[in-house]
Order: sequence, then C-alpha cells, then structure tokens
Amino acid sequence: MFAKQKILLSAFLCGFYALNAQKTSIQQNEFIKKIYDEALLNPHAYSRLGELCKEYGARLSGSDQTEAAIEWSVNMLKSYSFDSVYKQPVMVPRWERGETSRLNFSSAWLSKNISNANREILENRFPQSPAPQYECDAYISSLGDQISPKTKNFPIQVTALGGSISGKVTGNCIAVESRAELDSLGENGKLKDKIVLLNRPFEEEFIRTFLAYGSCVNQRVQGAVWCAPYGAKAVLVRSMSNSCDLHPHTGVTYYDDTINKIPIAAISTAAADALSYLSTIDPKLMLDLELSCLTYEDRLSSNIVAQTMGLTFPKSVIAFGGHFDSWDEGEGAHDDGAGIMHCFEALRILKQLNYEPRHTLRCVWWINEENGLKGALKYAELAKESGETHVVALESDRGGFTPRGFALDSIAFERVLPFREVFAQYGAGEFEIGGGGADIGPLKKNDKNTQLVAFVPDSQRYFDVHHAETDVFENVNKRELQLGAAAIAAMIYVLDQTID
Amino acid sequence: MFAKQKILLSAFLCGFYALNAQKTSIQQNEFIKKIYDEALLNPHAYSRLGELCKEYGARLSGSDQTEAAIEWSVNMLKSYSFDSVYKQPVMVPRWERGETSRLNFSSAWLSKNISNANREILENRFPQSPAPQYECDAYISSLGDQISPKTKNFPIQVTALGGSISGKVTGNCIAVESRAELDSLGENGKLKDKIVLLNRPFEEEFIRTFLAYGSCVNQRVQGAVWCAPYGAKAVLVRSMSNSCDLHPHTGVTYYDDTINKIPIAAISTAAADALSYLSTIDPKLMLDLELSCLTYEDRLSSNIVAQTMGLTFPKSVIAFGGHFDSWDEGEGAHDDGAGIMHCFEALRILKQLNYEPRHTLRCVWWINEENGLKGALKYAELAKESGETHVVALESDRGGFTPRGFALDSIAFERVLPFREVFAQYGAGEFEIGGGGADIGPLKKNDKNTQLVAFVPDSQRYFDVHHAETDVFENVNKRELQLGAAAIAAMIYVLDQTID
Repeated sequence: MFAKQKILLSAFLCGFYALNAQKTSIQQNEFIKKIYDEALLNPHAYSRLGELCKEYGARLSGSDQTEAAIEWSVNMLKSYSFDSVYKQPVMVPRWERGETSRLNFSSAWLSKNISNANREILENRFPQSPAPQYECDAYISSLGDQISPKTKNFPIQVTALGGSISGKVTGNCIAVESRAELDSLGENGKLKDKIVLLNRPFEEEFIRTFLAYGSCVNQRVQGAVWCAPYGAKAVLVRSMSNSCDLHPHTGVTYYDDTINKIPIAAISTAAADALSYLSTIDPKLMLDLELSCLTYEDRLSSNIVAQTMGLTFPKSVIAFGGHFDSWDEGEGAHDDGAGIMHCFEALRILKQLNYEPRHTLRCVWWINEENGLKGALKYAELAKESGETHVVALESDRGGFTPRGFALDSIAFERVLPFREVFAQYGAGEFEIGGGGADIGPLKKNDKNTQLVAFVPDSQRYFDVHHAETDVFENVNKRELQLGAAAIAAMIYVLDQTID
Repeated sequence: MFAKQKILLSAFLCGFYALNAQKTSIQQNEFIKKIYDEALLNPHAYSRLGELCKEYGARLSGSDQTEAAIEWSVNMLKSYSFDSVYKQPVMVPRWERGETSRLNFSSAWLSKNISNANREILENRFPQSPAPQYECDAYISSLGDQISPKTKNFPIQVTALGGSISGKVTGNCIAVESRAELDSLGENGKLKDKIVLLNRPFEEEFIRTFLAYGSCVNQRVQGAVWCAPYGAKAVLVRSMSNSCDLHPHTGVTYYDDTINKIPIAAISTAAADALSYLSTIDPKLMLDLELSCLTYEDRLSSNIVAQTMGLTFPKSVIAFGGHFDSWDEGEGAHDDGAGIMHCFEALRILKQLNYEPRHTLRCVWWINEENGLKGALKYAELAKESGETHVVALESDRGGFTPRGFALDSIAFERVLPFREVFAQYGAGEFEIGGGGADIGPLKKNDKNTQLVAFVPDSQRYFDVHHAETDVFENVNKRELQLGAAAIAAMIYVLDQTID
C-alpha cells in the first residue's frame, strides 16, 4: 500500500510538474506581447545607438573619445530615472594605431605585364567561377590600373591589429593557407626575412558564421607568435570575414614575451586573394609595410551600470549587458553598440510597463572587452566582494541582427523551455543548451550556479562588418535591433519569473 | 476476436506510420548536407544575380531592357545543360513613367518662418521621441534649407505609381490617415480640388512585415478610386515601408472605369511625415505635381522555363520559381531577382549532385507579376492544356534574406514535417500550414490538389527596399541568398521523395 501510494504521488507530482512545464499563463503571454509592442511602437534603442555612433563614433579603450562617450551614456541613462545609474572604475590598457598604416607592393612582373595582368589576375582568382563576383572583381581587375606610374608601387589598404608593435619593414611576400604549410615552410628556412600572408579563408560551409570565425581566428590572434620564430619580418592576415570585399578587419593579437615581436596587420579578403595570387607568379614581389602603433600606460575608465531593484530578492541579480568599447575602425555599431542598447532598452521597457521584478535587474556596459577584458574582470571581482548572488548573466555581443533565439545554461534552459513556442511566435524560438560570453564568463568562475545566457541573432551578415569601417549605424536595421531588445526583455522577464 | 485483431492491426499501422513520419534516413540527411555545401562552396546564384542586376538593371514588363535580359537569361540557363530551356510567349501590358516625375511645394508660412522652421518641424515630427532619428531628421530638419531662394519652391522626390495616368495639377494639400477620415472629409466637401496625401503608416507592431504591408497597401492600390469621387485632383501615397527614409516606393495602382481617373504617385515616408505636418500648420501650402506616364499597346514577352525530367513520373511536375519582371525603380534585386536565382540555383544544385528526380523539376521565371500577372495566367493555361499534373508549385517572392522556413498546403506540410528538425539545423525550420503566392495561385485554380508552397525568408528588411531605388544588388547578402537557394533545393528534394 505504502509503495503504491508513493508511486501514485510521484505520478501526480510528475503530472503536476509536466503541466506546469508545458503551460505558460495567459498573463505571461500578454505581458510578452506588451514588451514587443513597446519595443516596436516606442523604440528608444535605435535612436540612442544613432546618437552614440554619430556623435561619438568608435570607442577604443583608453581613448578620450571613449571617456566622452561614457559621460554622455551616464547622463543619458540617468534621464530614464532607473533606481540607480553608476560607474565602476576600471584600469584599461591603451593602445593606438597612430598616424601611419601603410602597405605598398611593387612587382616587376606586374609592371611588365600590365596590359594583360588584369585579365589574368581575374581569371586565376576565380578559375571555377562561372561569372565575376562584382565588388571583388572590380577591385582585382583594377589592380594594374592603380599602380602609381611613378613609383610602380601599388597601395593596399591595411589595418594594424590591436596590440601590434610599430615597425617599418620591407620584404618578399609569401602566402600560406594552413598552419601545417607554415611550419613546413618555416622549418625549411623559407620564411626567413619574409612578410608572411596568413591567408586561410573562412570555411563557408558552416551555417553559423561564428563557427567559421572560431576555426580561423587563431591566425589573427597568434600570427606573430607563429611566424617570428621562423625569422619572418612581419605578418599580414587575411581579414576575418565571409565576404569578398575591400575592407580590412582589425581585432586583437597577442605576443609571447619569450618570442621576438614583429608587426602584424590585416588586409581585406579581396586584397589577400590578389596578393596571394601575385606572390605565386612573381616570387620577387616586394612588400613595404609601415605601422606607427603606440602603447601607453593603462588609464582609468569605467563600466556603466543601470538597475532596477528586485522586490523579493534584492541581493539576487539578473545581469544583462554588452561591451561599451569597440575597435577604432567604424563606429562599433553592431559590435557592440547594438548589444548595449539591446540591454538598456530591455531595462527601459520593463520599467515603462511598470514591471515589478523579483530579482534586481542590472544592465551592465562592460569596458575593454576587445583588448583586455578588464571591465568584466573588475565587475566579477566587485560582485564577489559585495556578497550579491548572480542568478543569471545574459550577454548580447553578436550584433543587432534579426533575432533567432538564445543559448542557455541547463537550469535556465529548463525554466524557459515552456516558453519556446511563445518566443517562436516572435521569431526568437531557437533555444539551445550552453550559455556563455566573454564578459559574463568571469561570473561563472565566481559561482558555478550562475546561469549564463547568450542572445543569438542571425549571424549571416555579422562578419561583413565586424571590426571594420563598415560597422556603422547605417548598417543597423531599426526593426532588427528593436526586436532583439524585445527578445532580451522577454527573456529577462521569464527568467525573473521562473528562476530562484 | 475480429474486432480485437483489427484494433491491433490499426495500432500496428499507426505505429508504423508514426515511425516513418518521425524518421528521416541518414542518406536523406546527408544529401541535404550536400545541397547546403554545394550552395555555399560553389555558389552560382549570387554571381548570376549580379550580372542580371548590373548588366540589365530593372525589368519592367514590356520594356526593351527586359527583353534583352530575357535573351541573356535563356542563354545563361542553356549553358547549364538542363534537359530543356525554353520560352513561353506571353502578351504583357506596357506602362512607362515617362521623362517627368516632379513634385514641388510652396508655403508662405515656411518662407516667413524659415529660420525657426527646421527646429519646429523636427520637434513636431517626433513630439514623444527622446532623440532624433538620424536619416529622417536630417531630411526634415534640412527642409527649409533646400527651398529654392528664387522660386520658394521645395522639390520632393516622387515616383508615379505603376498604371497612373499622366497629369499636371496644382492644389492645396490635405493629409489623411484613415479611410474613415477620408470619407468624412470627402462627404463634407473638403477634398474638392485638393491633392490628397494618404498617410496611413505601417503598423509596426506586426512581427511579420508582410502583415503590415497587407493591411496598408489598399491606399496605394485603390487610392485614386477612393479620392476621385470626392473631387480630388490627384493623390499622393505614403510609401509602403517600415523605415523612415528618403526613398519613394512605387507599386501597382488600379482605376475603375466608372470613376474619373486622377494621377497618383508615392513619396517617401520622411517626406510624407513632413508634408503632413506642414499642411496642418499651413493649410495654404500648395503642391505642384507633374507626371508624364504613358500606356502603350500590349507587347509580346515571355516566361522562361528550365527543367530536369522526372524518371518515375515525367508528366507530374514540381514547379518552382519567381517573377522575372520588376518595377523600374532599383534593379529588382530582392523583388524578385533573388527568387528567380534561388530557383535556378536549386535546379542547378540538384543536377550538380546527380540527383535523379522522380517528378519533373521545373524552374519557372514568370513575367509580369507586378502589373498584370499575365505570365502566371498564361503558364497555368498552358499547363491545363498540356495534360500535365502539377503536384507541387513553390514560389520565392519575399526577397533574398536569411531563410526562416516555408508555408505549405496541408498535404505537403504533413510530408515534410518529419524533416522539420533537419531544416532547423540550417535555420529554415519554421514550417506553417498555408502555401500560396501570386504566380502559383492560378495553378491551384487548375487543380485543387496542387500543393502550394511559399519560401519564407526573414521579412524585417524587405520593405526597406521593396519597389524602391534601394532594391539593388549591393543590398543582397551573398550567404543569405545562397542559404535561401539551398533551403529551396532541400525542400524540392524532400517533396520529390515524399509526395505522389
């Protein structure tokens, strides 16, 4: 009897749990609808992003421009009368590319064959392509035309990688497509005094472009460390981009103090293709690279926080944010202006709807994600000292594109799973297990129970603009941005309701 | 006993069916992966779209340019050695906007208040907005500056709606936001001799922008018929767009032969906002509109067909396509260059992978979807005469944006449902019941068993470019386009395998 009763009770509880797990209340669904209406009918994120991008521009850690933008941001956030808005002081590194970023090449072969060169370059660039690809080919086919008649030098747009040393070097170009090829050439002394072009392209067959980036980015981050031991003078890296275009994409690079430091810079995918081809048919092709990068003393900067206090668990925090800093190319509109405005807008919408949160809702704009992570580390350090609990930490750092869904740690995933169909109605129903993000990672180290959540927008266009001069406000679509903010607000609402 | 056996058999069959319904074979999943790899690693659609857009441009029905593009298309398709490539002759209407599309306004108020006008217009345009919206405000705040000092006339970019008559009219402007307001004003004689601005904006709260378009487009299609009976001289329509920008969007309009025909044209959303505001504070504001539209005799044009014969059911056709014609603004890159290239690419990929279809796979590029549907009607007429069966007709006419999924008639929906998770891995797993499309609709009238399928890409950016000068190749993303082609090829493959 006892055993049977126990089984019945279990079955009842399971049924009860299942019932709860499957259902979302009409009130909850209606509230989510209100969140979306507010985001689309009374949008603030898009205008604020426009002001930040157009009035302040890029936000490289440690720059005066960034500090001015921080002041604007604090005042802007204060104008919304959140429970509190404050700065967290953080020391950040300060690197600048300086005045000169110059790359030229000269090729006796190209000078001699200038009349046929364009056609030949074009045909060899796309041997299997049935038709030219417009932007790329217009560039490649005009290479010859652009050579200075006086110097026979051809200028290539170049961007120093973040952290590169300065330098002025001349050398023959050698292009490599893989680490194995690099090591084989290096071990045979073929990289000595060369300028190495690391030309491994994105693997286009990955549906999610972040996977292609992840499997390619080590040549940018470690390129100098790979090449210096073989006697290379400098490194050029093919831009981390899916598209064949004319924009060099910067990004962080690191040295190893035990290995000789050499200059390292990125060129566009189109230029990388052209240079790779030309260096094959003309091994005497000479490159002339000059970078005037400077590294200063660390400087005091800030994280920015805006929050609404929790009514039930004020010391339990749901943190959500993105990074305030950006690279100095473009305006950091998608990376990560979109992410910070998503999270500000989420806080604003919930306040506007008079939502009374159970947990403290904290929007955080971390500083220095791009080249140091000092903001995230300081935030986690202060969180640990404060005795607060972070029940959830959500990050938006994949651009302001049309929402797809969320990646969540397993407990958060379970809690929000009953809402998947609701989110799907708004195009944000792709839920997967496994949250994370650069700025929220340190919080997980503080407390393994903290549930990490990543907002996942569509990734197809992200690396077209990532770290490049094309990452400007004009390339952010208003509705895509606002829908992202709504999805995040809805997710915070659901987590606040369902997690303890 | 008999009854019990029957129940057991039913249960067995249900189980068997369920098993089949739930599983997709490893071979099928691997073949779908091959389709995606081919689309992303050996892309043809993007380059072909570039050629079509950049070498031929817009493809208005009946134009010489369109006929030249048709010749190029037939030769291009023939170069792929499909089983057959041919044209279907179709008579199409021929309307041209002519040389002049001119709209000016003059406002004594604005001339007098020119120094304060910009600020006032700006503040009144966005009374509740916390911040300017960049493109829109730059325009509106510069209105005063742009007034010709000599004539005091301000030019507004205008596009005649497709089918409009020509005309040169001058009149006061009156802006209305709803049909009810229009009728109320009209019945009180307030529209007499006026130029009416139909200024109902998109309802931004719709997640899918096609719903906003659908609920707004009647003012463009029927505007002249609504306004003429009240004595209006001409109609201006707010562009059918989500974004506040400077581009007028054209599109088809119709007259009623029993009602007086008046000229009708579109202005940008930003201009509509400005004009609506200015006409309120200055009822004497004068508009001066001139359109030089021309309608010619119908002309012979063509649908274009490319196909691979079915091995099992050669007389059973799976048709898939988009419309070849476009409006004359822009290049018809998304509408519907993307759709026709999606479907060509799907046919190419299946051929490239040596797929042996059970049904005949037919890629159709219909002519004259925008202003007559003559191509679709002719295609359906010929299909009926031929004795062929159309088991499936799929249409791609929602742009070349990142895929979301498909809308399918119920039998097709059931067949492909077991593949939903496979499609979801590629971001195209949003399946819904209810297929359809302008060009495939007539096939359903032929045979109610024909399963209609619509490809559904993300809709957020579609109406930014729809029928406007911004619908150009540069605004198509290569990966988004190619993923669309892959999704369609995979859908055709699954339907060919599962439907009889």
